[in-house]
Amino acid sequence: MKKVGVAILGMGVVGGGTYKILRDRKQAIAEEYGVDAEVVAMLDKVPERLDAVGADRALLAPSIDAIAANKDVDIVVECMGGLEPAKTFLLKCLKAGKSIVTSNKEMFSKSWTELEAAAAETGAGLYYEATTGGGMPIIRVMTAAMQANKILEIKTIINGTTNYILTRMAKEGADYKDVLKDAQALGYAEANPEADVEGFDSSYKLSILASLAFNKRVPADMIYREGITHITAEDMRIADELGYVIKLLAIAKNRSGGKIEARVHPVFLPKSHPLANVNDSFNGVFVVGDAVGDVMLYGRGAGELPTGSAIVSDVIYCARNAEHARYSEMNDIVNKKDIVADFESEYYLRMNVHDVSGVLADVANVFKKHKVSIARMRQDEGNDVITVIFITHMTHEAAMKESVEEISRLDNVISVENVIRVEK
Amino acid sequence: MKKVGVAILGMGVVGGGTYKILRDRKQAIAEEYGVDAEVVAMLDKVPERLDAVGADRALLAPSIDAIAANKDVDIVVECMGGLEPAKTFLLKCLKAGKSIVTSNKEMFSKSWTELEAAAAETGAGLYYEATTGGGMPIIRVMTAAMQANKILEIKTIINGTTNYILTRMAKEGADYKDVLKDAQALGYAEANPEADVEGFDSSYKLSILASLAFNKRVPADMIYREGITHITAEDMRIADELGYVIKLLAIAKNRSGGKIEARVHPVFLPKSHPLANVNDSFNGVFVVGDAVGDVMLYGRGAGELPTGSAIVSDVIYCARNAEHARYSEMNDIVNKKDIVADFESEYYLRMNVHDVSGVLADVANVFKKHKVSIARMRQDEGNDVITVIFITHMTHEAAMKESVEEISRLDNVISVENVIRVEK
Repeated sequence: MKKVGVAILGMGVVGGGTYKILRDRKQAIAEEYGVDAEVVAMLDKVPERLDAVGADRALLAPSIDAIAANKDVDIVVECMGGLEPAKTFLLKCLKAGKSIVTSNKEMFSKSWTELEAAAAETGAGLYYEATTGGGMPIIRVMTAAMQANKILEIKTIINGTTNYILTRMAKEGADYKDVLKDAQALGYAEANPEADVEGFDSSYKLSILASLAFNKRVPADMIYREGITHITAEDMRIADELGYVIKLLAIAKNRSGGKIEARVHPVFLPKSHPLANVNDSFNGVFVVGDAVGDVMLYGRGAGELPTGSAIVSDVIYCARNAEHARYSEMNDIVNKKDIVADFESEYYLRMNVHDVSGVLADVANVFKKHKVSIARMRQDEGNDVITVIFITHMTHEAAMKESVEEISRLDNVISVENVIRVEK
Repeated sequence: MKKVGVAILGMGVVGGGTYKILRDRKQAIAEEYGVDAEVVAMLDKVPERLDAVGADRALLAPSIDAIAANKDVDIVVECMGGLEPAKTFLLKCLKAGKSIVTSNKEMFSKSWTELEAAAAETGAGLYYEATTGGGMPIIRVMTAAMQANKILEIKTIINGTTNYILTRMAKEGADYKDVLKDAQALGYAEANPEADVEGFDSSYKLSILASLAFNKRVPADMIYREGITHITAEDMRIADELGYVIKLLAIAKNRSGGKIEARVHPVFLPKSHPLANVNDSFNGVFVVGDAVGDVMLYGRGAGELPTGSAIVSDVIYCARNAEHARYSEMNDIVNKKDIVADFESEYYLRMNVHDVSGVLADVANVFKKHKVSIARMRQDEGNDVITVIFITHMTHEAAMKESVEEISRLDNVISVENVIRVEK
C-alpha cells in the first residue's frame, strides 16, 4: 500500500468536493488502487469553509511555506482559481518536490511552460485533468489512451455556461439576453459573464488541448475567438428548420507543413453530429487520431463532484506513476505565422433586404466575384423587408469577410444580420 | 529511454495493424512517451502474413515456447482470437513473466480469473483495452480516469455489426434479412452471424465491463441476452415516428444490497439520448459514476488501425507502469441469485387485432390486472386487421411477460408482433 499525503489549496466548491471524495472513498481507493491517500493539510483564508465540509480545523496550514515544507505532503491539489497567488504557490511547492494536481485552467494555460520547467527540476508530477472539461477525462484519453496516434483534429464543446445558454435558447425559442439573466439568477453564469460568453474560457481550455495534441505550446491569445452574444432566437429557429443546432465550438486542426488551426466560435452543427446532443452544462469533445479515427467523450464540464472526481483521479494516477510524464516540447511555442488565419469553412448568412427585383442578383454577383459557392438558399414571403438565408459551400474566411462587406453596402440590402460558420 | 521487446501472436488484420503502428510511430512514441518499443518476434502459421505488412520473416518464431523463452520479449500481444490455443499460449507467457496485451474478448471474458492468477504469480501485467470497444478507450477511462467513483451504471452499444445493421435498417426502411445479406457481402457480418446478431459478442464485452465496474466477475453466461433478429422494418418506422431509434444495448446496473442487473437486448432509445447518434459500426458507452455523473465515450469498435491503436496504447501504458494493477477481486464470482432477473423497464408492444368493438378494453383489462400502466397508445385506421402500439410506464419484466401471454390468448387479438424495451 502506497501512503500519500495530500494538501488542498482553496476549500471552495471544487476543493470541498475533492476533500469529500478523498474522505468518503478512502477505503475503496486503497483496496482497488493500492493508494492510501490522506488529506493532511489545507489552505484557505476562510476557516469556516473547512467546517462546511466537516474537515478538522487542525488541518488548516498557516501558510503556503508551511505546506511546501511539510514532509507529510506528497501531492498539492490547487483549487484556488485566478492567476495569483496560485502560480507562485505552485512554483514553491514544485521546487520543494511536491507533485501538483490543478483545476485552474487560466493559470495553467498561461503558465504551463514555467510550471513544467519547475516540475522537471525536482522530478515532481504535474497533473491537470480537471482544468479541461471537468469530469470529462479528455486529458487522460489523449495521454494514456491515444499514444499510438498523431492527433489530427479536436472539436469540443468545452464551456458549460454557453452550452447551457444555447441549449435553453434552442428549447425555448428565447433570446440570448433573457436566458443569460436567468442563467445568472440560477448560478449557471457569472454576474460578469464575459469570460464564458466571449469564449475566453474555451480558448484557455483549447490552448491546453491543442498544446498537448500538437506537441508545442498554442497560447490562448493566438486562438481566434468569437463569443455567442450575437446569436439570436431567429438564428436558432432557422438552424432548427434546416436540421442544425447552434453550439459554441473550440476547434484545433493539425494541418500539413506544421501549420495549425485554432479557433473558438459558434457553429451550425448538423443534428446528426455526435456533439449535437451535448446539451445543458455538459461538455463534449471529438478527437480524430490518425490510427484510431474518431473518438468522442462527453461528461459534466464542472461542478463540485465531477471536477473533484477528475482531481482525485489525478491524485491516484500521480501516486501510482513511477515516472511522471515530461512535456519538454512545451518550450516550443507555435509561431504566430503557423496559425492559419484564412481557414476554410461553410457559412450561414442571414440578411434583410428590400423586396425589389434585382436584389438577389446583386448579392449573387458579389458571391460569384469572390468565388463563394452557394449550397442552399431560402427566402420566405414577406412585406417590404424580407429575410434571405444562404448556406455556402467551403469558402475561405477572407473571401467571406469581403463578400459580407460588399453585400452590406449594396443598395437594397438593409443589413447582413448574422454570419455563422457551419460544421459538417 | 525504456527499451521494450514486443512479440505479436497472430498476424491477421489486428496483429498487422499493431505491427504497422509500432513500426511507423516508433520514433514519435519514443520521443513523446520515453518508450522504445520494438517488435522482436511474431507467431503465425501463415508466414505470408508477415510479407503482407512488410515484416522481416526472420522475426517469425518457431513456437510459443521460443517466445516464452526469449529474453528480449517483455510484452506479448495476442491477436489470435478463439479460445485455444490462445489461452494456453498466454498462460505460458505469463508464467515466463511476460506481460500480456490481448484483443481476444471471448477468451479473456471466459479466462480472466485464470490469467489474472498467472499474472499475479510472476508480477506480469495483463492489459485488455482492445477486447472491448476497439478504439474506444473504455477500459482506460474506467481504470485510470474514474477511480474516484463507484460505478453505478453502464449502457453501451458495443457490437459494430449489429449497430451497422440497425443503422441501415433505420436509414433505408429495409428489413433485417436484406440488410444482413448485404452486410455479409460487404464483410461487416460473418457468414455465420450468430455471435453478433444474437448478442453473444456484446455479452462477452459486457462481462468484462461489468466485472471491472462491480469488482466481481460477472460471467457472460449469467447475462440476460436477446438479439436483433426479431426487429422489423415496421418497428423501425414506428420508433422513428415516436421519436426513438432502435439500438442493441448492453446494460449493467449496480443495485443496492449487492444486486446487479446485466442484460443485452434491443431497446427503443430516445433520439435525444447521447447514444442515439452512435451509428454504423461505431461503438458508444455511457457510464454513470457516483461522483462524476454521466460520462460517454464513442469510437470505432473494430478495424485494423483502431484496434491496433488500443493495443499499442496498452503496450506503452504497460511499459511505463512500474506496478501492474491486480484485480484480486476477480476471484469472487457474482452469485447467480444476485443478478436481478425481474428488472424494471418501459416496454413497446406492437400487436395486430381484429377491428371489432371491445378488443381494446380486453387488452386494457389485462394490463390493469398486472398493474401495467400505459404511457402512450396508438392505433391507426385500418381494414379488418389493425395494428395497435403501446408504450408502458416502468413495469416489472415478469408482469410484462404475463401480460403478453394473456393478451396473445384474447379472442380478437391476432398476435403480439413484438415487445421491445424502452430506455429513457
